[in-house]
Amino acid sequence: MLYRSWGSSADEALDYTNSSHEDVEIIEQVRLTMKAHVISLFLSGTIDKPVAREIVRAINSFKEIKQGYEDVHEALEDHLIKEVGEEGGWVGLARSRNDHVATALRLKARDLLEELLNSLLALRETILSKAEENKQVIFPVYTHFQLAQPSTLSHYLLYIEEELSSRWRNIFSELSQLNRSPLGAGAIVGTNLKVDRKKEAMMLGFDDVVYNTISATASRSDIISVVLEVANLMVSISRIAEDMVLLSSNMIDVVQLPDSHVSTSSLMPHKRNAVTMETLRAKAGLIIGEVASVLSIYKGTPSGYDLDLQEMNPHYWNVLEEAIRAMKILKSAISGMVVKKEISDPKSLSTDEAELKSIQNKVPYRKAYFEIASSIKQGVYQSNLKPQDSIKMKAVIGSPNPDLITEEIRIKRSFLSQDQDKLTSFSLRVRNGMNLMKVIEDDLLQE
Amino acid sequence: MLYRSWGSSADEALDYTNSSHEDVEIIEQVRLTMKAHVISLFLSGTIDKPVAREIVRAINSFKEIKQGYEDVHEALEDHLIKEVGEEGGWVGLARSRNDHVATALRLKARDLLEELLNSLLALRETILSKAEENKQVIFPVYTHFQLAQPSTLSHYLLYIEEELSSRWRNIFSELSQLNRSPLGAGAIVGTNLKVDRKKEAMMLGFDDVVYNTISATASRSDIISVVLEVANLMVSISRIAEDMVLLSSNMIDVVQLPDSHVSTSSLMPHKRNAVTMETLRAKAGLIIGEVASVLSIYKGTPSGYDLDLQEMNPHYWNVLEEAIRAMKILKSAISGMVVKKEISDPKSLSTDEAELKSIQNKVPYRKAYFEIASSIKQGVYQSNLKPQDSIKMKAVIGSPNPDLITEEIRIKRSFLSQDQDKLTSFSLRVRNGMNLMKVIEDDLLQE
Amino acid sequence: MLYRSWGSSADEALDYTNSSHEDVEIIEQVRLTMKAHVISLFLSGTIDKPVAREIVRAINSFKEIKQGYEDVHEALEDHLIKEVGEEGGWVGLARSRNDHVATALRLKARDLLEELLNSLLALRETILSKAEENKQVIFPVYTHFQLAQPSTLSHYLLYIEEELSSRWRNIFSELSQLNRSPLGAGAIVGTNLKVDRKKEAMMLGFDDVVYNTISATASRSDIISVVLEVANLMVSISRIAEDMVLLSSNMIDVVQLPDSHVSTSSLMPHKRNAVTMETLRAKAGLIIGEVASVLSIYKGTPSGYDLDLQEMNPHYWNVLEEAIRAMKILKSAISGMVVKKEISDPKSLSTDEAELKSIQNKVPYRKAYFEIASSIKQGVYQSNLKPQDSIKMKAVIGSPNPDLITEEIRIKRSFLSQDQDKLTSFSLRVRNGMNLMKVIEDDLLQE
Amino acid sequence: MLYRSWGSSADEALDYTNSSHEDVEIIEQVRLTMKAHVISLFLSGTIDKPVAREIVRAINSFKEIKQGYEDVHEALEDHLIKEVGEEGGWVGLARSRNDHVATALRLKARDLLEELLNSLLALRETILSKAEENKQVIFPVYTHFQLAQPSTLSHYLLYIEEELSSRWRNIFSELSQLNRSPLGAGAIVGTNLKVDRKKEAMMLGFDDVVYNTISATASRSDIISVVLEVANLMVSISRIAEDMVLLSSNMIDVVQLPDSHVSTSSLMPHKRNAVTMETLRAKAGLIIGEVASVLSIYKGTPSGYDLDLQEMNPHYWNVLEEAIRAMKILKSAISGMVVKKEISDPKSLSTDEAELKSIQNKVPYRKAYFEIASSIKQGVYQSNLKPQDSIKMKAVIGSPNPDLITEEIRIKRSFLSQDQDKLTSFSLRVRNGMNLMKVIEDDLLQE
Repeated sequence: MLYRSWGSSADEALDYTNSSHEDVEIIEQVRLTMKAHVISLFLSGTIDKPVAREIVRAINSFKEIKQGYEDVHEALEDHLIKEVGEEGGWVGLARSRNDHVATALRLKARDLLEELLNSLLALRETILSKAEENKQVIFPVYTHFQLAQPSTLSHYLLYIEEELSSRWRNIFSELSQLNRSPLGAGAIVGTNLKVDRKKEAMMLGFDDVVYNTISATASRSDIISVVLEVANLMVSISRIAEDMVLLSSNMIDVVQLPDSHVSTSSLMPHKRNAVTMETLRAKAGLIIGEVASVLSIYKGTPSGYDLDLQEMNPHYWNVLEEAIRAMKILKSAISGMVVKKEISDPKSLSTDEAELKSIQNKVPYRKAYFEIASSIKQGVYQSNLKPQDSIKMKAVIGSPNPDLITEEIRIKRSFLSQDQDKLTSFSLRVRNGMNLMKVIEDDLLQE
Repeated sequence: MLYRSWGSSADEALDYTNSSHEDVEIIEQVRLTMKAHVISLFLSGTIDKPVAREIVRAINSFKEIKQGYEDVHEALEDHLIKEVGEEGGWVGLARSRNDHVATALRLKARDLLEELLNSLLALRETILSKAEENKQVIFPVYTHFQLAQPSTLSHYLLYIEEELSSRWRNIFSELSQLNRSPLGAGAIVGTNLKVDRKKEAMMLGFDDVVYNTISATASRSDIISVVLEVANLMVSISRIAEDMVLLSSNMIDVVQLPDSHVSTSSLMPHKRNAVTMETLRAKAGLIIGEVASVLSIYKGTPSGYDLDLQEMNPHYWNVLEEAIRAMKILKSAISGMVVKKEISDPKSLSTDEAELKSIQNKVPYRKAYFEIASSIKQGVYQSNLKPQDSIKMKAVIGSPNPDLITEEIRIKRSFLSQDQDKLTSFSLRVRNGMNLMKVIEDDLLQE
Repeated sequence: MLYRSWGSSADEALDYTNSSHEDVEIIEQVRLTMKAHVISLFLSGTIDKPVAREIVRAINSFKEIKQGYEDVHEALEDHLIKEVGEEGGWVGLARSRNDHVATALRLKARDLLEELLNSLLALRETILSKAEENKQVIFPVYTHFQLAQPSTLSHYLLYIEEELSSRWRNIFSELSQLNRSPLGAGAIVGTNLKVDRKKEAMMLGFDDVVYNTISATASRSDIISVVLEVANLMVSISRIAEDMVLLSSNMIDVVQLPDSHVSTSSLMPHKRNAVTMETLRAKAGLIIGEVASVLSIYKGTPSGYDLDLQEMNPHYWNVLEEAIRAMKILKSAISGMVVKKEISDPKSLSTDEAELKSIQNKVPYRKAYFEIASSIKQGVYQSNLKPQDSIKMKAVIGSPNPDLITEEIRIKRSFLSQDQDKLTSFSLRVRNGMNLMKVIEDDLLQE
Repeated sequence: MLYRSWGSSADEALDYTNSSHEDVEIIEQVRLTMKAHVISLFLSGTIDKPVAREIVRAINSFKEIKQGYEDVHEALEDHLIKEVGEEGGWVGLARSRNDHVATALRLKARDLLEELLNSLLALRETILSKAEENKQVIFPVYTHFQLAQPSTLSHYLLYIEEELSSRWRNIFSELSQLNRSPLGAGAIVGTNLKVDRKKEAMMLGFDDVVYNTISATASRSDIISVVLEVANLMVSISRIAEDMVLLSSNMIDVVQLPDSHVSTSSLMPHKRNAVTMETLRAKAGLIIGEVASVLSIYKGTPSGYDLDLQEMNPHYWNVLEEAIRAMKILKSAISGMVVKKEISDPKSLSTDEAELKSIQNKVPYRKAYFEIASSIKQGVYQSNLKPQDSIKMKAVIGSPNPDLITEEIRIKRSFLSQDQDKLTSFSLRVRNGMNLMKVIEDDLLQE
């Protein structure tokens, strides 16, 4: 216990509000933040080189949150004072847990988002490659879970890719917004020490600062943005999971999932349960709850840091880490899935028949439609078409026509390549900033 | 790995769907369930005494979920087979993970609910006692967070008690519904072995069985009911937490929380932050998310057990355990809180003035009201009343009038006493059932 | 505009906070509440008979909320003053919008809950009757959406009934808690006029009063309880809706929904889309959001009435009305659904084979299981059983065995009958209370 | 009833799934979509000019959804056939309700988002102007709702601006993603007619097409993205609303809201309730529910259009329209709010004292901090500083120091100006596309 001196012998505050368990997730980021702060104190002339050196060394030796501290910040500062002595207490200047935790949260989210965006790129690559190989493989697409019209596995896969690339772009765009530094904002109004917030930002790989010090210390909206968009991604792919569960059912039996994705029953020896896809579907529900938690904890809190904000932290990581795991499990499932049979229903060709009748015979579509509908209802409908015919006839961008699919894959590959470049360039910028700090640190540590 | 034999060398199913970490919460309940099952096999003559004895012994020596298992059930069965040999494989008969986990979940929820209901009773007792001592202590009540009319601390405390006792009754009523046994329902259609489900229920302290085997294995609605009502409780007390945060602010300064409930700032030495109450308020937001998770995972899953249901489990315990912690922190805060000063605003007596004018002078209220309102707007309003006068004049049940408060506390104490009796009687019934099983077990284990 | 006299010529408060549109739902209940209040003023001797008569007449002539009022309460009071003159202003005494709206909300919820509980009883009756007729009709039940073991339509229907009756009991129990009167609690601390709150409660058919006046005016937890449990009901039946959508797909084709429940496509003439069941499934998602709205609006508001509470009102009715509609659509769907074919997979009899092997040959189940599992994996598994054999062999309560089903239906009918009696008796009690008020009103109105 | 021919005389589908009431919101967008489709049929040579002319005229005369139709699309097509005769049935070709509703939803969302983004710009402008005028006005900022350190109204306002501008950028970025055309994707696999999807997109002011036809018809993720980010905005400003409610309480009395924003009580004549701000705060809770509705309806639906998607539509508009209203009410409240008094607590200067002691005397901060903390606890703390001194000493970007505030406003104004340019340019691009269609339409309609 370092600062809390109101405490009586009983300590409900420590017991009930302690975040040490959750803070384990951000130890590394809190250390980086503190290091940037100490270097900033050094650069501003507030502390001299030997003190800075000792403190930086002590930061590097901080590995875990011992018992009896409210949070990682108190534990770190106490460690520094114990290691360095009274001079360690300089780190309290021009700094508060409020700006430090805000900074660490952004750093942690940035790390996870880079990993997520990379996983997404890898998944998109896998999908495009599999789509290239399956342009002729008939695959059921449905509306209202009723077989609709013939399609191909490629067409279905490109749907997934389009969903993923849209989310990728939004997440990436929000990542830039997130990558701004709160450091130097103190508790809420900044500090009387002339600290160079822009320089601190640069050393931590940030693109800019969060200007206003109230925003910097007490807003979580930038991180909420990415959490929300990642939730959107998860809900979007829960539909793919649902497709896999349903189509791999022994009642439909169109898709075979890899053996490594299915599980059996302890009572019923014949079961091939699509358990990874069920779990993935459920995770989207979990994430909906995470979103509701984060938003309803945050809603209506008075401006300025409230301890409520601490309760939001674990949800950020949970959402981002679940999304990373989801990308990997989906990549594995899609890579390994096999189409077992061509499911067909002659009636799913009725739309083609009606279209042909309309186009070729110059009959308004609704008329052609009703003629076909009538024969279906009378039970006399027959089709001469095959699913393969239907596929080939499709004439618009984005349809399962293999020629158009080829072109679509080409375009999608080019988008993918651009996205890869953007992320690489972002990561390079971040690394460059952090290398700058490393250089200063190395110089400090050199005797 | 015991049953899952589709698995290739890679095992995404095991990695991604593994619930061993979460199942730690229900180890004890899974053992109890298995014990009731084995005794039932013994009582039905399916296995003989020595086999039953060996299996029960092995159940008792099962302490942890080792690595490499999908879940606690697989780990337990493998443990039994390893300890007992092939005869241990009898436990697979007439049983599935589906009915066993459903049973264990109800047992675990019952345990936590008994604890929660007891904590609630203790909190209500604390509040009634404090209310008895504070009938004359002026306390601000507000509407729209504007000081409304004078009240007392007792009156405010009895509001909390009324909220808590209403939730108590609903939770207790749902607990009876929950306390029904799914055991013996197999995977989904029961079993060909003549197992006495009513007897099994009795041995586990259940009040009845869940009849239909689909409901028994695949419904979570009974447990969702209690989770929802407990969430309601949490949201209800988040308002008390908000009151405490606001009234203990140095800008209002009416309430002093115990030292053990406040924390200070690392930068600003003067702060007394109401951190336990902030955390309690935030926990209600957390719980809103848990509710959203549970409901949205469950929604629209096909009937029959789906692995999605496994993802719901941790949320049940989280909600119930947070509620238990919340009862304790609230009890401590209320016990120790002190009213620092009598906050007053002469205008908060304007309603009494208008009422008196109306009643004594036989003037329709709206007329009296507008006369007072007009003097307020002209800035000439004055009152001869004191808050204490206002309190004494209150004439209806449930108001802060100390005489009526005395009567209300008497009634509330009698409700509390009835509720205590109901819970005691429920717990006794549960213990009696479980003792029955203990007697049979002891007999089995005696050589 | 009656009371709000701070307003400048611009009136953002009126524009932005106006609830007149939503209050249309509770006009009748607000009138009843006001009538009970006026009769109470009369009975306490505060107003004389002619004044009471005029006001009650004016209440009866209040039909709509005209423009320019904040809410129904202001509109009603202004109507009374306009109709009765200055004496109409007596209704402002010992009363506030806070206790009146709280009372009206409980009355409205009570009305809707009675309707919902009746619809639920009718649905349960329909299901039990259909279950009686379909004990031999083979019906697929699945776990993980993989065909599990043979079952019957009766068995599936009784699952639905069990779910519904559990929810019925919880809702009914919460209805009693809800049926308590807030009337007479004023704005927050009651009033100086000696009003008989117990008598007012009786006249409105309430079972008791909400004692504490802060609870009475500012708590919404009792109504939230029922909303939550009704949400639970909706989510529970979303699974039935999902079953219907999936099983009526042309890819599975086991269930035929009534023509009146399906819709076709504007482009694809062959489609039979299970649109009512899709909508029902979606409504459960809608309701999850309503729950999140209500809880997160309520969470953390300071105690005492806040205008935030007004924003919660429409959600209550939406949840309850959607549930009533859902009961009706489900009743119609279940009545009219037909099993088109017996879906079968010999492998779904493997569990019976293993059980028989274990029981008859005295082989531990896990051993028998692995023998069958092995033959399945080698592709040599064959079964001599028929689904009908499997059904007949089931030996436990709640299973599809037709003899046990017969007994289960008998028990369920008896529960249903008890529930019907409970509701009838509740409704009678309510009507009796309200008749008491009617008698007094009639006497008043008689010249 | 146009297509649905399975319907028996009873028509539960029509009753339960009818969206006509909600579709009123998108009539204009559905007409535009149909017009683009008809012009596309004309340009591709499928229909000739006179037919196209008649159909376009009939589209223009479609004003309302008459009774008896499932939705706006059926009503419109029936109107066209009635107006134009059998040739009107051409509109059914190469088109489905699925692609048309997807297109109309994006158009409607685009309209509302342009309005929202403009409202946000106006609000930011208002805030920057007010910030310019209030650089010296002392204003309380708090952490944990305890007065923290002195600040100014400008500083507080710039916090709001920073929050708003961050959301502005994210919403604008998602708007580009949203502004892609689903038109021409048919029901799910496109069509056999060679329709130019890129040209259709251009005529509706879209920036690109949604390529894959499954995505185009059945994904709602792009619109969910904007709904989520707008929800984030709403939750963010709920904190401002909370500040206003609390600071305008008669217990604190620092802020006076405009008369037009407050309301009084029907019982208590002295109340000035901050009702618009309470409602605004509650709306954030409402929106959290909308988010939960949308996500949980969408989650786990099979890919391809499901009727569940229809249930999502009203929530989009509700979120966007509430946000637009919120921007306006917040603009009015901020414009008119007045700081009534300088709230001060000498202890809120203790941090400045500790910082000065540390910086000037070269004492490690923690040591200086504990000296001050000790004097506070002993009750002997005194400060020679004034809030104005504290403000002036602040030395970092984003702090309340008036000189730095001046510079920050300059930067923020330049960001605002850039954002205005971006939106103007987006709107221009949209209008240009739509003008292109207008030119073709005018040419068609000219005899």
